[in-house]
Amino acid sequence: MSQVLERVAPAAASEAKPVKILNQIGLDLTNAVALPPQAVFRSASREETPWQVGDATILVTGPSSAWRGAPATPPQGWPFNLEWVQIASSGVDGFPDWLFDVPQVTTGRGVTAEAIADYVLAAILDDVKNLPLRQAHGPEDYASPDVLKPLGTLDGKVLGLAGFGAIGGAVAKRAKAFGLELRVCRKSRQAELPGIASVDSLPDLLAASDIVVLALPLDDETRFCVDQRALSRANPGLHLINVARGGLIDQEALIEALSSGIVRLATLDVTEPEPLPAGHAFYSHPSIRLTPHIAWSGGQGREPLAALIAGNIRSFLAGEPLVNCIESPSRIPEQSRL
Amino acid sequence: MSQVLERVAPAAASEAKPVKILNQIGLDLTNAVALPPQAVFRSASREETPWQVGDATILVTGPSSAWRGAPATPPQGWPFNLEWVQIASSGVDGFPDWLFDVPQVTTGRGVTAEAIADYVLAAILDDVKNLPLRQAHGPEDYASPDVLKPLGTLDGKVLGLAGFGAIGGAVAKRAKAFGLELRVCRKSRQAELPGIASVDSLPDLLAASDIVVLALPLDDETRFCVDQRALSRANPGLHLINVARGGLIDQEALIEALSSGIVRLATLDVTEPEPLPAGHAFYSHPSIRLTPHIAWSGGQGREPLAALIAGNIRSFLAGEPLVNCIESPSRIPEQSRL
Repeated sequence: MSQVLERVAPAAASEAKPVKILNQIGLDLTNAVALPPQAVFRSASREETPWQVGDATILVTGPSSAWRGAPATPPQGWPFNLEWVQIASSGVDGFPDWLFDVPQVTTGRGVTAEAIADYVLAAILDDVKNLPLRQAHGPEDYASPDVLKPLGTLDGKVLGLAGFGAIGGAVAKRAKAFGLELRVCRKSRQAELPGIASVDSLPDLLAASDIVVLALPLDDETRFCVDQRALSRANPGLHLINVARGGLIDQEALIEALSSGIVRLATLDVTEPEPLPAGHAFYSHPSIRLTPHIAWSGGQGREPLAALIAGNIRSFLAGEPLVNCIESPSRIPEQSRL
Repeated sequence: MSQVLERVAPAAASEAKPVKILNQIGLDLTNAVALPPQAVFRSASREETPWQVGDATILVTGPSSAWRGAPATPPQGWPFNLEWVQIASSGVDGFPDWLFDVPQVTTGRGVTAEAIADYVLAAILDDVKNLPLRQAHGPEDYASPDVLKPLGTLDGKVLGLAGFGAIGGAVAKRAKAFGLELRVCRKSRQAELPGIASVDSLPDLLAASDIVVLALPLDDETRFCVDQRALSRANPGLHLINVARGGLIDQEALIEALSSGIVRLATLDVTEPEPLPAGHAFYSHPSIRLTPHIAWSGGQGREPLAALIAGNIRSFLAGEPLVNCIESPSRIPEQSRL
């Protein structure tokens, strides 16, 4: 589970204080980028919990069922010698609050944003153009009304973005190229986004858009933000796409809205819990397209994440600012909050 | 088949010479935009051939089997009173050469470019992301290696454009937003396209690209430009997309290249002839995705075409330049030639 690797600083770097890095994410950071000699990797045994960090200076960790089972209060002495926690994911849900009581926390934000935005556009075009069902299998298909009915269109359609972090920005860039009109709903208002009208609330966004993409963090404020009340305001024909966290949606309310036709289609890459139990309506509802949390995959695999973390380690050793810092206790980078 | 409509110029416009418009495309132009009173529509009976234009000043026509069956030499007296032929399609193949022996010919170029570009990106993302086959139908799909294998990616991929007319430009705009690297092969070299490297020949383009989009007119020079020789140079893994004309491709050579694995996938919205006869390999080849010439459809239907033609009629009546003019005898707008 954890990477076992020891590096001893050579004599030439003896003036640099060794930094002990506990890598819990099973990703070989030493191959990603050559790390400075004073970076010393340590390992934890498979039996240890993720908060048994020993004398580590840096913890590299990710979401896991072990973290979800963490006690409500931190272990005695937390954060021990920890000066920085690097989280591999973009989302910071699923960790105990006390994990963030360390001098610095950084995330993997942005690493998979481009792949996720490609997934979003694939889901949109799959709905609108539906090419697999428009294939011609014989000359008769050139005269069949079913085949010859016009393809769907993005012409005049409005795409609503809930959140405008790395994923929202990557979706917006693509959507603009297709001529989609953009709306955005986000908590921070410090800067207007050029060419994107702001909407005050998520219900307003659902009412104003033909497609809504959920790309915001899950926290106490955003949990169930797509609830019965919000869904009741949805634009008829809405295609709701969730590539963030399942807990943003009241799933029972979504099933009702889809079954009654208030919402036309939902593309969901995330659910709560994950996976849902066997027989859950999401697996078979005709208006739900469910994928098993794979939107982030593809691309260069985990190389960009390894490069991000290795870069942060170099910055830490050089005393320079880290990227993707989040502030305790709010924990959520402001630009990606709803 | 033809629109029957007579308009009589009111007295107030009596100084304007009436212009007789023969509308053969079954599209009600009078609803599109209010036309000036001196525009007088005429009709031809269903039995008449499209070149029986009578005393029309303007002919609005489109591709048809009747035009394909036209005699090699023009009817005696051609072009009679015709001052301008407006063709509804972008492509000008399928018409007799002598149709172009009139003072002005214009096309429907660009009207469907955005819809066709959306189709192209849908075909690309359908191949790369393949979401319909990645659905989760139960908790077991969250652990199945088939479902959990990474999605495909556009990361580092090269898109080659054969032709850079309205369709090529609309595809390029979208492809850039996805971070695709672009190559273009076109005949005209008068201006470098910013951010797009030029390639000297179509075989070079097939060799340099992961995806090639054919978006160029069919003429004597481009017919069978994708032949056995060109295909033999294709980049392994190539996805060939044809949204232009079937005659650009040597179809037998394409079947061989797909069957031998030289080309991975072909998405074809056009064939020659159209439709292909029953039993043709294109209908069943596992590496061909064939659609029945529908890429142009969707969008605002034929409204943009009606608006384009009505605008040209107003310009004609006002003595102003028309849009989408093509030059006789080359017949091909230079910017969209290979």
